[in-house]
Order: sequence, then structure tokens, then C-alpha cells
Amino acid sequence: MARILPGIFMITDMKKFKKVIDTSKNEYVNLPTGRIDTKAICEAGDGAVITVGERRYYILECGVYDYIMEGITRQTQIVYPKEAAYILMRLEIWPGARVGEAGTGSGAMTIPMAMAVGRTGHVYTYEQNTGLAGVQQKNLRPLASLENITLHHRSIADGIEEKDLDAFFLDVREPSGLLCEIHKALRPSGRLGVILPTANQVARLIESLQKHPFVILEVCEIMLRQYKINPARLRPQDRMVGHTGYLVFARSITKKEAQNP
Amino acid sequence: MARILPGIFMITDMKKFKKVIDTSKNEYVNLPTGRIDTKAICEAGDGAVITVGERRYYILECGVYDYIMEGITRQTQIVYPKEAAYILMRLEIWPGARVGEAGTGSGAMTIPMAMAVGRTGHVYTYEQNTGLAGVQQKNLRPLASLENITLHHRSIADGIEEKDLDAFFLDVREPSGLLCEIHKALRPSGRLGVILPTANQVARLIESLQKHPFVILEVCEIMLRQYKINPARLRPQDRMVGHTGYLVFARSITKKEAQNP
Amino acid sequence: MARILPGIFMITDMKKFKKVIDTSKNEYVNLPTGRIDTKAICEAGDGAVITVGERRYYILECGVYDYIMEGITRQTQIVYPKEAAYILMRLEIWPGARVGEAGTGSGAMTIPMAMAVGRTGHVYTYEQNTGLAGVQQKNLRPLASLENITLHHRSIADGIEEKDLDAFFLDVREPSGLLCEIHKALRPSGRLGVILPTANQVARLIESLQKHPFVILEVCEIMLRQYKINPARLRPQDRMVGHTGYLVFARSITKKEAQNP
Amino acid sequence: MARILPGIFMITDMKKFKKVIDTSKNEYVNLPTGRIDTKAICEAGDGAVITVGERRYYILECGVYDYIMEGITRQTQIVYPKEAAYILMRLEIWPGARVGEAGTGSGAMTIPMAMAVGRTGHVYTYEQNTGLAGVQQKNLRPLASLENITLHHRSIADGIEEKDLDAFFLDVREPSGLLCEIHKALRPSGRLGVILPTANQVARLIESLQKHPFVILEVCEIMLRQYKINPARLRPQDRMVGHTGYLVFARSITKKEAQNP
Repeated sequence: MARILPGIFMITDMKKFKKVIDTSKNEYVNLPTGRIDTKAICEAGDGAVITVGERRYYILECGVYDYIMEGITRQTQIVYPKEAAYILMRLEIWPGARVGEAGTGSGAMTIPMAMAVGRTGHVYTYEQNTGLAGVQQKNLRPLASLENITLHHRSIADGIEEKDLDAFFLDVREPSGLLCEIHKALRPSGRLGVILPTANQVARLIESLQKHPFVILEVCEIMLRQYKINPARLRPQDRMVGHTGYLVFARSITKKEAQNP
Repeated sequence: MARILPGIFMITDMKKFKKVIDTSKNEYVNLPTGRIDTKAICEAGDGAVITVGERRYYILECGVYDYIMEGITRQTQIVYPKEAAYILMRLEIWPGARVGEAGTGSGAMTIPMAMAVGRTGHVYTYEQNTGLAGVQQKNLRPLASLENITLHHRSIADGIEEKDLDAFFLDVREPSGLLCEIHKALRPSGRLGVILPTANQVARLIESLQKHPFVILEVCEIMLRQYKINPARLRPQDRMVGHTGYLVFARSITKKEAQNP
Repeated sequence: MARILPGIFMITDMKKFKKVIDTSKNEYVNLPTGRIDTKAICEAGDGAVITVGERRYYILECGVYDYIMEGITRQTQIVYPKEAAYILMRLEIWPGARVGEAGTGSGAMTIPMAMAVGRTGHVYTYEQNTGLAGVQQKNLRPLASLENITLHHRSIADGIEEKDLDAFFLDVREPSGLLCEIHKALRPSGRLGVILPTANQVARLIESLQKHPFVILEVCEIMLRQYKINPARLRPQDRMVGHTGYLVFARSITKKEAQNP
Repeated sequence: MARILPGIFMITDMKKFKKVIDTSKNEYVNLPTGRIDTKAICEAGDGAVITVGERRYYILECGVYDYIMEGITRQTQIVYPKEAAYILMRLEIWPGARVGEAGTGSGAMTIPMAMAVGRTGHVYTYEQNTGLAGVQQKNLRPLASLENITLHHRSIADGIEEKDLDAFFLDVREPSGLLCEIHKALRPSGRLGVILPTANQVARLIESLQKHPFVILEVCEIMLRQYKINPARLRPQDRMVGHTGYLVFARSITKKEAQNP
């Protein structure tokens, strides 16, 4: 495979310093112990180790994880990779899939979805807050060559243009009113995934899903616990993320009952 | 997108009964309240609701998650989707990627990797226990049309045939002795992911990685907590999985230091 | 200190077999590999190691933890020691404290509270379900010599007899309607602890507490993860308890505002 | 019960401000919106609500939890109440118990143990770092009237003076070498609890315990997840403590095997 995100690198001292660099945009990078030209980064290349001012730095290819964690501009609360990964799996977002999303936000979930469906798939994403168009354009730029993202600047409450979608991902405050539109847009047995920050929203969503032609397969939360990288003193890190969101996964079913002959 | 796994369905009463059906192999399915022909399942199609003997059943397209959880034969301890999802993300296994794996086991991680890389990518997987060839063939059969899995029946300790791999996933008892071979097979800045059941193994692996040209980006564990699907009495399920494995993620770096001009 | 619970032992093979024995009631104990007289248990005494039919058994003093986990009869959902321990701490249930409780249930929280307040304190516990009187009498019997438990067979909705209590523990379905009575029974700055199985109940209770002269100090849940006892293969157990209850801790405040001179 | 810690109050605005006040030491308290005399705090009394400079403050009795979290001086890593509570329960530290401890550290575990055993029990605590004597004296002062703490300024490696202890709590770097001394000090079937920050230490301790006359009952960790106090938007807090320590609980057994008659 070619590099994941063209021209984008991560440079780190493997301690506290970690920076994502778009070499098409910046001429140099300020490091804690000096500065380095982006041209030197490109020439050194992925995996290079380079000493600047008595400290070693590692030049790593920037992937989707690094880009979301360190590279994108966050103008909204984002979906983190620990949830994004499980959402991709549960929504079965594989190459060729046609996927819907609302709202786009800063694009933190649009990016892994577009990567996962590849050139043969497509992501149709809706965001009614037009004030986010700038940050979306900036954040999604490195995926431009995939040509697989369509951005709608309006709410899906006014209808979803696409039909027969394989999956739909929802990250909006009140998803309940949107279920009819989503059901129309999904293919039969299509997958719906929703992220919600509060338990009250989850209770309301379950109630709504139960009134619509959906079956709910899972309501869950993901906890990631990181360890200190010290083989003689192995232990979890002192602090961890306590909550990002609850996840709800459902499947669309047909309204009319089939006959068992 | 076409159906994810051709001819494979999941039938469930959304209570305790859940079964994955390969309609190319079985003529009928025994349900708690009767039986149904697989032909009727195909005709009803994805998303159908069907009543058999006074109980409603839902016919859902079987995806990778359902297939791993309910469909595959388990002859070894498997990697579960909650870890598999995060591994795909951290190893950046996107369409077109060329990925190595050892050992194959029952194929529970080979399946999502092969799905994620798609027809333009490839998974090269090694398993020295030839007694698993049967279960692997059976479990991987629904992915045959992808033509993107190469299965080696030997240990990678004897060398990895492929070069310039984007990522490598390790699920073996003692990974430490294999790091040289893996480094040779990975492209610079390539990604290594390891799953290990015990803390002692993690400590030993970190120690080994620190002696090889790798940098360790994350040591973690994933906890998934599921909720009961009851909007008026929302609460986590009484029991949950306490542990499947620790995950270690590293990146290969070049052995020779680059010059900062 | 004398033995914690007079005449009560735990006998275990430190594998799967674990049994709590009241030597005042039983003449012998059936073990997986034979049987043993309770007289022999008493004579061997706490900490004894004894072989019966080619297996070693350990005779351990039975404490409150063992008694709740293995010894009491459970006629209701009980409060487990992992929550009980934190409740004792947060309600500051130390020797001499006067504590209220509703409902008593099987007495699984009454027991540690009565132990913690000792002879100089007292537990006043209310249970309206008179059908539980038998199980309560049986379960609380080993604490009889403390003479510090008063059992009321009615709801606290009809009033709490005691005044100036240091703390109150609530384990009832709908605690909201009981807050006035509890406030009257608590001393100023007295502590209220509530266990609730569902998120909906927690939301309703918070809302009610905010309308009464209470301040809420903590809403939390306790997760206990146990490890396999194997030094060469240290790892958490495969399964764990996912949920027992949410805990809410509040303090009573005075209704009239004080003057800052 | 009288107040838990004489003369000590907590004053809070139930937002970010929270302060523990020893009214025997301070003349006034600085608040975010002004200041208040400690005399006024005593006169207002526990549970009082008082407005200072347009903000409401709550005067709450300070208990052990508040005192450990906000009141003590921390010169060492402390045992937090979430672990302390479970340790008290697992070590069965009830009124009248005689308990040993090493090392004392800042006294954060000595305090709840001394509270729990009360005037009829005793805590014998050892600390070889004499530089901690000052902070111990300061932190333990509010418990002085209990007259139940004996502080030894030396390591238990040189012997434990007391015999027939009900329980022993260990919080030292390398507990393995101390097990002989502890076994001598504990009564048969006595309880040992150990807190250890790293998995490597846990593995080593289990190995040592298995070579001594102890049986290991539990190896675990406690995770506390706190929720935001908002009934309309109930959700866990964004960040939580990821790790404080692993807990190991064992029981002493007799060295000589008993005879089954």
C-alpha cells in the first residue's frame, strides 16, 4: 500500500512531544530542542531516527489514528478512535460499502469511514451547521484523492438523498426524530450506529427504536485502559478516559412480515 | 455493496436464540419453535420478519461480527471483535494494505483483516500447527471470492517470505524471538500489533521490543460493557468479559540514524 | 479481638469448594472427598490444614465478607461487599455511629453496618415486606451478641422513629418519596447513601434530592476486577461482575440559612 | 455519635471549591468570594448554609473520607478511600481489632484503620523513614483522643513486637522478605492485605506467599467511576482514575497439619 495520508508525517521524541506535520503546508517544524525542515523530514522518510539538538526524534508515517488524535482541528466534540474502531466493526464498514452519516462535526468519524470503504465505496455525510464547513474541508483534505466523500450542508430531517445504504452513523443530539428518514435510506437489514453522551438519550433512543422497524443488537460502552511502557514496573496509567459516549447498534427490518410457506 | 458474506444469514428471535446459517450448506434450520427451510430464508431475504410456531424470527444479513461470534468453529482461543476492531484501527488496515499474521489459529483475526484490506490488499498468515488447516479452510471459505489470503503452514521463526508489509499482527505464545524476522518483513514505519493474555508476557515483550528497532506506541486493554436493552430500566448487564488480552502496538524504525543537514 | 462471628467457620480446598459452617447448627460437613465432624473443625481451629480423602482443606475463620458471600440465605438481591465497603466509608460508619436503613432485605448491608458501629452504636433497619422476617432472623443471628440491631417491620414512608441519626442507607425501589422523612431523621450534615440498579432511578433521585435540603457529593459505581492467582501467568479473570448498582451519596443540610456576621 | 473528627469542618460551594478546616488551628478561611472566621463556622455548625460575597457555601462535618482526600498532607503516595474501604472489609477491621501496618507513610491508611477499630482496638504501625514522623503526627492528630495508634519508627524486617494480630496491612516496595515476620505476628487464620502498584510486584508476591504458610484469597483491583450530577444529562465523568494499586489478600495458616480423627 502507498502511504496512508500523502505528505503527512508524525514526529515524536517518544516522550511527551508528538506532532503531526503536513509537509505540503509547512516549511519547518519547531521541536523542543531546535527546528527541522519539512524537506529533511521527507528525505529522511518514514521510520527514520534523527537527532536534533541532543534529542532523538522518530519520523513515523501518520496514519488515521495519529491524524485524528493529533492532526485534525477540533471544533466539536469528536468521536475517538477507540469508539470509531468498534463502530466500523459493528456497522461492517468494509471496502465498497455505501455509508451515511449525520452530523459530520469536525469529520473525526468521516475520516475512518472514508478510509475503510475505500475508492469503491462512498460516505454521504450531513451537517446542518454550515459554520463547520471550513474545519471539515481542512480535516478531510488528506483524503481528497479517495474521491469518496459527499458532504451535504443540511439536516437529514429534511430527507436523505441516498437510498439502499449499507450503514448509517448518527452523532446528533436528538436522534429519535430521524429514524424514519434513516430507515428509508437503509437497505433491508442495514446497520445503524449511534453515539450518545448521556444515559437519558440512550433510554429515549431505545424507546424510539422499539417503535420503528429496527431491532437493537447492542447498547454498550468501550473503556480503553493504557499501561505505562515499563517492563520492570508494568502498571496501568494513573488516569484514563472515564467516558466518551454510549454506543447503540441496530438493524433495519422490513415492515411487512414474510410468509413461512 | 453486495452482501458481506455470500449466502450467510443470521436468524434470531432477539431473545436468547441466535444462529448463523450458511444457506449453501444446510437445507433447513431447527428453531426453538419449529423449523424453517433455508430456501425460505433466502426468499424472505435480509431484514425479513417471519413467524414460526408462534414466535417471531428476524432474518438478518450475517456480517463479520456475527460470523466470528456465532458462525466460526473455534479450535483455539480467538481474538474477539472488541479487540479485533481496535487492532484494525491501530494497525491502519485499510483497503489495499498488505498485512502479515502469525499464528492464524481459527482465523478469527484473519477474517476481519482480509475484509478490511479488500481485493486490492492481501493477508499473509502463518500457522505452524497443521492440525488447524481444516478449521481454517472452513472458517475462511465465505471470504474465498476476495482471493486475498495466503496461508503458510509453518512458523515465521523460519523466515517470512513477504517483504515491505504495511503491518503485522502477532498472536503467539512467545513473540520475543520473532521480532527480527518481523522487522525484516515490515516496511519502515510499519506497524506491529500483538495480543497477549498475561502481564508477564507483556513485560517480556516490551523488554524485547526495546532491544530491537521498534518504538512502542501503546500498551492497553479494551473493556466492553454491554447494557440491557430496556429504556425504563437502563443498566449494564450483570456480567461482562473481564479479560481477553493485553494489546501492544509498535512501529518499526530504521536501524541507521538519518542526518539532519 | 475474639473471633468475628462466634462458631462460624469457612472450609475450603482453595479451588472450587468453599463452604461456610455454623458449628452450633451442623454436626458434620459434606466435602467433595468425604465428610468431617464440626467438632473436628472446632478442635482443629482457625487456620488449620486438614486432609480428608486425599485432598487438603483449610479451616478459616469466617468473617463478614465470607459470611455475606457464602453463608447468608439470599431471598432478595443483596448489596455485595465491594459496594458495602465503599458505603461504610462514604457514610462514615465507625464505632458508636447510629445508622438507619431501609429496606433490610436479606440483611446483607445490615450485617456490615452492625459490625462497623459495634456495641456502642446502633442500626435501625426498616423492612415492610414481613415475609423476609425469617431470613433476616437467620442471617443476623451470628451478630446477636452485639445487641445493636433494631428491626422495624414497616415502611419508613410512615415515619422514622429515630432522630439525630448519623447516616441512613437506602435500598428501595423508589427512594424519592422518602427524602422528607429521612431528612427529619438525620442530624444536620448527616449522611445519606442510596444504591440503585438503573440509570433512570439515579436520574430521578438526583432530581428529588435537588428539591430537598440535601447536597449531593458523589454518584458513582464500583468495579472490582479479580486476577487469576498464578504468578507466572498473571492476568485478570475471564469474567467479572459488570454491574450491581449505582451509588449516590448526599449530605443533609439545614433549611434555614445561617448569617455570616 | 459525636462528630467524627473534633473541630474539623469541610466548607464547599458544591462546585470547584472544597476545603478542610481545622478550627483549632486557623482563625479564618479564604474563600473564592471573601473570607469567613472559623468562629463563625463553628457557630453556624454542621449542615449550615451560608452566603459570603454572593456565593452560597455549605459547612459540612469533615469525615474520614473528606479528611484523607482534602485535609491531610501528602508526603508519600497514599492509599485512596476506594481501596481503603475494600481493605477494611477484606481485612475484617471491625471495632476491637488489633491491626498491624507497614509502612505508615503519610498515615492515609492508618487513619481509617484506627477509626474502624475504635477505642477497644489498636493499630500498630511501622515506618522506617523517620523523615515522615512530622507529617504523620500532623495527619494523625485529629484521632489523638482514640489513643489507639502506636507508631514504630523502624522496619518490620527487624521484627514485629506484637503477637496475635487480627490483620496486617502492607504497603512497602518489596513485601516478599517480610512474610515470615508477619506470619509470626498474625494469629492463625489472620488476614494479610497488600497494596502494590505494579504487576511485576504482584507476581513476585504471589510466588512468595505460595512458599509461606499463607493461602491467597483474592488478587484484584478496584475501579471507581464517578458520574456528573445532572439528572437530565446523566453520564460518567470524562476522566477517571485508571490505577492506584493492585490488592492482594491472604490468610495465615498453621504450619503443622491437623489430624482428622
